[in-house]
Amino acid sequence: MSLIAETPEPPYYAVIFSSLKGDDSAGYAEMAQRMMELAARQPGFLGAESAREEIGITVSYWRDLESIRRWKAHAEHREAQRMGRDKWYSSYRTRIALVEKDYGK
Amino acid sequence: MSLIAETPEPPYYAVIFSSLKGDDSAGYAEMAQRMMELAARQPGFLGAESAREEIGITVSYWRDLESIRRWKAHAEHREAQRMGRDKWYSSYRTRIALVEKDYGK
Repeated sequence: MSLIAETPEPPYYAVIFSSLKGDDSAGYAEMAQRMMELAARQPGFLGAESAREEIGITVSYWRDLESIRRWKAHAEHREAQRMGRDKWYSSYRTRIALVEKDYGK
Repeated sequence: MSLIAETPEPPYYAVIFSSLKGDDSAGYAEMAQRMMELAARQPGFLGAESAREEIGITVSYWRDLESIRRWKAHAEHREAQRMGRDKWYSSYRTRIALVEKDYGK
């Protein structure tokens, strides 16, 4: 998770997950790591990038909307989402975006 | 830059900028802050989020592709981009993405 994702030529999808954590972080780090490992094994997963300072930003990349839908509906991921909403995050936003173009060095 | 951007209803655009810094950080923090202030004053700017650990991720949100094109072509921003490429970043990727949907709490 420390490197820039090596995604294929666009188009592909990005899920931009931005979050602010509350005071209760019990179990969070383990769950976050588990979810990254699990996500990486899902069909259509193309890579992910993550950093946290005051705000946490995780961007995961996916082949298509169907891959994103299936991952969102994954039973273990649903439980993590529920704990995020109810316990860990004071605020969060998930944005689903079609990557049309990319460039870099 | 510490809070989740309050973007309008989709569709709008996201520019996902992921970067790894090299050893030479002279002048970087000042330039990064200056660019955020300048970006926030551009037509079509909707907000931005940024975090850096091993990787830096800055997501800025824009009304349309024309706003992004104008900001990319801004003279002072072009100089910052040049210094980023030549001096500060060992690697980076910029992704232009159409946000189709968002949700959160």
